[in-house]
Amino acid sequence: MELLLLDEFQIIFNNYLDRRLKEISCEKEFNDLLGYTPQSGGKRLRPYIIYLLSNALGLPQAVYMELGLGVELFHSGSLIQDDLPSLDNDDFRRGRPSLHKYCGEGSAMLIADYLMLYPGKIFLALPLSAKAILNLLKLWYEASLQVIEGEFFDVNIKAKKMEEIEKVHRLKTASLFGFCFSAPFVCAERFLEAFEMNKAGIDFGRAFQIFDDIKDKLGKSETLGKTPGKDEAQNRPSILKHMKVEDAKGYAERLYSKALEKIKQNEVRKALITVRELIEEH
Amino acid sequence: MELLLLDEFQIIFNNYLDRRLKEISCEKEFNDLLGYTPQSGGKRLRPYIIYLLSNALGLPQAVYMELGLGVELFHSGSLIQDDLPSLDNDDFRRGRPSLHKYCGEGSAMLIADYLMLYPGKIFLALPLSAKAILNLLKLWYEASLQVIEGEFFDVNIKAKKMEEIEKVHRLKTASLFGFCFSAPFVCAERFLEAFEMNKAGIDFGRAFQIFDDIKDKLGKSETLGKTPGKDEAQNRPSILKHMKVEDAKGYAERLYSKALEKIKQNEVRKALITVRELIEEH
Repeated sequence: MELLLLDEFQIIFNNYLDRRLKEISCEKEFNDLLGYTPQSGGKRLRPYIIYLLSNALGLPQAVYMELGLGVELFHSGSLIQDDLPSLDNDDFRRGRPSLHKYCGEGSAMLIADYLMLYPGKIFLALPLSAKAILNLLKLWYEASLQVIEGEFFDVNIKAKKMEEIEKVHRLKTASLFGFCFSAPFVCAERFLEAFEMNKAGIDFGRAFQIFDDIKDKLGKSETLGKTPGKDEAQNRPSILKHMKVEDAKGYAERLYSKALEKIKQNEVRKALITVRELIEEH
Repeated sequence: MELLLLDEFQIIFNNYLDRRLKEISCEKEFNDLLGYTPQSGGKRLRPYIIYLLSNALGLPQAVYMELGLGVELFHSGSLIQDDLPSLDNDDFRRGRPSLHKYCGEGSAMLIADYLMLYPGKIFLALPLSAKAILNLLKLWYEASLQVIEGEFFDVNIKAKKMEEIEKVHRLKTASLFGFCFSAPFVCAERFLEAFEMNKAGIDFGRAFQIFDDIKDKLGKSETLGKTPGKDEAQNRPSILKHMKVEDAKGYAERLYSKALEKIKQNEVRKALITVRELIEEH
């Protein structure tokens, strides 16, 4: 079968997500809130990358959909937290009220905890060898802990020198893309390639963050799904403090190309070139 | 060697915790805040239970101290969150300002995330067979996710019927004791006994929570380390809404005895009888 395009994959992934969320065994009231943010849309870029590479490696759907599910739940949990008044204080996310506006801050925080812890349980249950699962979980803890550390520096770094900004991006955004790029190789027990692909994913994630900062500066509320110009107004670490938009764009494009060069599978590289246009559009 | 008493174990555990916290590879500013709550004292009851049972099973120190460390870090993370204004809103913890009073709410929340995720990484690195680690992590995800779900119901349950209160206690408090009782058996690959010990730990945890509620009602600020009468004033689920103090005490003592009956190791049972006096004192 030909590789699915991102918008085709989104439909399949969203159906899968709906079904799997219902299977999480907890009380109905809690379960409804668990789905509020993950089911509110989003590009599903991280699960899509996992799908592309897994497909090229011949991994079964039961593996790559679960990997994508875990990453997307964690990502949703981290967005719920980001929106809280003590962090970014954003009342809207993907065009809907943020979770804490819907159910209160305390409950939103606990839902975020659950979504960030749950992926470990998902990955543990994958139909893989013990060796693959243990290596996957090791990779997962590195990435997920780095996301939290990155959010901490995002809030607390004062000087915002170029290298500090890049450190925040690497920890907060790029580490999760590093996981998406290398997890399929770990599941396929191709551990040496996994290591190289992690680096490719980090370059990809750095590029993604710069494109995102450019969108925040130039974007409109409708396409952004959140308040434009907010990151800048809140003095969040953005590379645009040190570079003109055009230069930043060129820098991100070079990082993106560098990431793609490491991908040996032609069809995956092609799909990710198409994805770049979607990431860049504003 | 004879079994250590709780206060002897505390000294050894606290030294171990100090050393291990320093080894967590992250930036100094972040690392300092990570230790603030775990290093602020506490009875270390959960790591002590793990020590007692592990010792009886002949598990090496490298296993039981790491198990205790993981549980204590998670527990600290959950206390940091509990103290936040959107949950219990407590400015003091163990006689010191709560973490969010020290470093702000956003940072405290991120430190809590890190402390709740980190144990998975610790358990993954234990010097055990792949089978034991995978089973241990399964047990860990069940317990840690239940704690979060329990906190959610603690905040959101309105009716507070007896069975609802007991459900909150079972999820929020007892599930972590269930882990402490059964984890050493999982590490020793005695999986059938582990299952039974989980139930014993849950009864132990339910008793512990009732003793704690009694202390909150009757206790003084100095021994409690937090504001006494606060749980009651905040209308938190307490069994004392449905029972007189003396009856609740009797109920807790019966649960405690039921838990101890399941423990076959004489010296562990004796140590836990001594512990009961410490839990009950106010």
